[in-house]
Amino acid sequence: MTCTGVLLYPLFSEYELAVALSVLKQGGQPIQTIGVWGGPIKGESDLTCLPDTTIADADPSRYDSLLFPGCMDITTLYNNEEIIDFIRSCARIHPQLKIGAISSSPYLLAKAGLLRNKAYTVGMNVEQRVQTGVFDEERYSNSLVVQDGSILTARGRGFVQFGVQFGRMLNLEFSPSWYEG
Amino acid sequence: MTCTGVLLYPLFSEYELAVALSVLKQGGQPIQTIGVWGGPIKGESDLTCLPDTTIADADPSRYDSLLFPGCMDITTLYNNEEIIDFIRSCARIHPQLKIGAISSSPYLLAKAGLLRNKAYTVGMNVEQRVQTGVFDEERYSNSLVVQDGSILTARGRGFVQFGVQFGRMLNLEFSPSWYEG
Repeated sequence: MTCTGVLLYPLFSEYELAVALSVLKQGGQPIQTIGVWGGPIKGESDLTCLPDTTIADADPSRYDSLLFPGCMDITTLYNNEEIIDFIRSCARIHPQLKIGAISSSPYLLAKAGLLRNKAYTVGMNVEQRVQTGVFDEERYSNSLVVQDGSILTARGRGFVQFGVQFGRMLNLEFSPSWYEG
Repeated sequence: MTCTGVLLYPLFSEYELAVALSVLKQGGQPIQTIGVWGGPIKGESDLTCLPDTTIADADPSRYDSLLFPGCMDITTLYNNEEIIDFIRSCARIHPQLKIGAISSSPYLLAKAGLLRNKAYTVGMNVEQRVQTGVFDEERYSNSLVVQDGSILTARGRGFVQFGVQFGRMLNLEFSPSWYEG
């Protein structure tokens, strides 16, 4: 059975991830957390998590969808080619791979070439985006949440809509009212 | 230095906790996660966490505040006297102990006697509340978030306001705009 692969890296944002995780659980979509390593990984708010597997051990054919939380310091992933290769492998195996990436993490999709000709947003200002050298400025959108085909991107404070929209993209049945304060 | 003790139990709600954790981090308030045991604890959305310490090892004098996430099945804690003793010890040492509890977790405060003469809310319907035998129906409020002195309670879908209000109760400086979608 396929599932959603949830990437975990040091300083990942717990709150940007948590609503999406809850939506997946409500909708009966299984997940597997995939760490950049196998030991404990501390989020940006100091919650220590244990990934279910690692990028090195993960089987790309297992994931019909991928979920990327933001990262308080995405520069720590700038030289991580393993994660980029993993994303590309998953996309090659599942051409309709559904991906949700929030805050700084659309950087990883852009670097992997998956934002080509796609409308997107990202939690970086124009100077930061240009400095990375991987983003197409013409396709950038200032919306909080942007879906283009099977790719969903969001800025951090859109985390509730992001989680709800990710569940809709996966055709899950769930109640968004859980998150409407 | 004192810190906020964050209780972790099996099936704790990641999203109900995550905004409050982010507010604490923004505001420079240190935390320590306290597990019902020392090994991995899986949240209700299948995120596996490693607590920093356990109730058995935690020093109650260390906490100026406590934070309780909801729990998908609070009945698993009905016979856990250790957690009730721990809450009472913390409250005895710090008479002005600040407490935030969301969704089903105000049950733990009621059982520990801390909701006596306090307005509160809880994510349980009236039948569930009466069945527990620990709640005072006259003090129940249907509001999403209720603060009475140093005790803050909330229902699950108030998780964003809950986190923001918990930060205010602790007099932290932070930007609530991070969570306004």
